[in-house]
Amino acid sequence: MHRTKVRVVEDALDANNTIARANRDDFDREGVTVVNLMSAPGAGKTSLLEAAFRAGVADELRVGVLEGDVQGSFDADRLAHLHVPVTQLNTGGGFGGECHLDANMVRSALPEVPLADLDLLVIENVGNLVCPAEFRVGEDVKAMVCSVTEGEDKPLKYPLMFRSCELVVINKIDLLPHLDYDLEAFQANLERVNPDARQLLVSARGGEGVEEWCRWLTGTVERAAAAA
Amino acid sequence: MHRTKVRVVEDALDANNTIARANRDDFDREGVTVVNLMSAPGAGKTSLLEAAFRAGVADELRVGVLEGDVQGSFDADRLAHLHVPVTQLNTGGGFGGECHLDANMVRSALPEVPLADLDLLVIENVGNLVCPAEFRVGEDVKAMVCSVTEGEDKPLKYPLMFRSCELVVINKIDLLPHLDYDLEAFQANLERVNPDARQLLVSARGGEGVEEWCRWLTGTVERAAAAA
Repeated sequence: MHRTKVRVVEDALDANNTIARANRDDFDREGVTVVNLMSAPGAGKTSLLEAAFRAGVADELRVGVLEGDVQGSFDADRLAHLHVPVTQLNTGGGFGGECHLDANMVRSALPEVPLADLDLLVIENVGNLVCPAEFRVGEDVKAMVCSVTEGEDKPLKYPLMFRSCELVVINKIDLLPHLDYDLEAFQANLERVNPDARQLLVSARGGEGVEEWCRWLTGTVERAAAAA
Repeated sequence: MHRTKVRVVEDALDANNTIARANRDDFDREGVTVVNLMSAPGAGKTSLLEAAFRAGVADELRVGVLEGDVQGSFDADRLAHLHVPVTQLNTGGGFGGECHLDANMVRSALPEVPLADLDLLVIENVGNLVCPAEFRVGEDVKAMVCSVTEGEDKPLKYPLMFRSCELVVINKIDLLPHLDYDLEAFQANLERVNPDARQLLVSARGGEGVEEWCRWLTGTVERAAAAA
C-alpha cells in the first residue's frame, strides 16, 4: 500500500500562503509584475500613484491598480480619471471591515482585473501599519509609504511593516520646513529594522522625487522580467 | 429537574464584551473614568496627552495612561517624564502583533494600573483606524484624533471609527497653511457619518485648542461622576 506523509499545518498563515501562490502563478502566467503598496491612512499612496501616472508611467508600462479599502471607492475614482484600469476591492463585509487585504480577497477580485493587458499591477492595500504586512497576496515586491508628518519613531513601533518592504517612500517632504521632524533620526530607525530597504524622498504634491519613484516602478518591472 | 435555557452566543465579539463589562465594573468600583483614545499612526495621540499634562491637567485630576503599542515603549517613556503613572501594554505576541487592544488585553494589564489612585485613565490604543473601533475595552468614552495631514476623506473611508467616537480632535492645524486640505470638506464628511461628534481644532505643537482639549478631559470626568 502506498502511503504519503502529510505534515500538519504549522502556521495559521499557511492557507493564505497557498492562495498567494495561486495568485502568483496567475500573475506569472500573464507576465504581470505586482507591487503591494502599503502605508498608514493618509500617507499618500494614491497621491503617489496619481503623480506617477501624471508623469507618464502609464505611457511606458501598461499599469493597473487594485484598490483595497474598507468602504467606498474614493481612491479608485481619483485614479480612474487618469485613464488607468482600476478595480475596487472593499473589505467592509464584517462588523467594521477587515483592516488588510489577504490573498483570498485579492483572488476574489482577479476575475475583474485585466491581467492579460498589464505589465504592472499595483495593489493599494488598506491604510494600516500592522496587519497588511502579515498577509502575502502573491506580490513580487512589498513597498510602503511613510509620511514625514507621522514622526521618526514609526519603524521601531511597526517593525514588521518596515522590515517586510524593499522600498520605503518617505513622502510629504515639502512639509519638512514646517515640522519638528528629524529625518536623520527616522532614517537611523529605519536602518535599524531594515538596513536593506531602498529609500526615496518624495513630495507627491511638490514633485520632488517623483521621477525617481517612476524609475523605481519601471525598474521593478524590468527586474522581474529579467528574473523570469 | 431544573432546566435553564442558554442562548447560543450570536456574536464573536460577545466574549470581548463580557470581559469589557468586567473591566467596566472594576473601573466603576474605583471611580475611574476611562477614555479610549484612538487614531491612525502618527496623528498625535501622545503629543496631545503631553500637551494636556504640560498644561496642568494632571494637577486638577489624578490621571494615568495605559499605552497600547505593538512593540516598544517610546510613548510610555515620553509620558513618564511628565510624572504621570504609565503602564505599557504590548500586543506584539503574535507574528506581526495585534493591530488593536481588546478587552482581555486591557484586563491583563489592570493589575499594573493604580486604579485606586486615579480619576481618569486614558487608554492610548494602537495606531489604526479600523479594528480598535470594533473592540470595547470597558471605556466610558471613545475619542479619536485625526490629523489634517491625513486628508479630508477619512471619515468616509473609516466610518465605524468616526461613528464610534464622541470626540474627534482635528490635530496639527498649525500645518493648514502648508496643505491642500479643505477643513470644511472634512467636517462635512464627519457630519455625514457622525453628526453628534464633538469637534476640537487643536495644534498639540502650537498650543491652539489645547485648553479646550484639557477642558474636555476634565469635563468628561465630571460628567461621568454626575451620572454615577
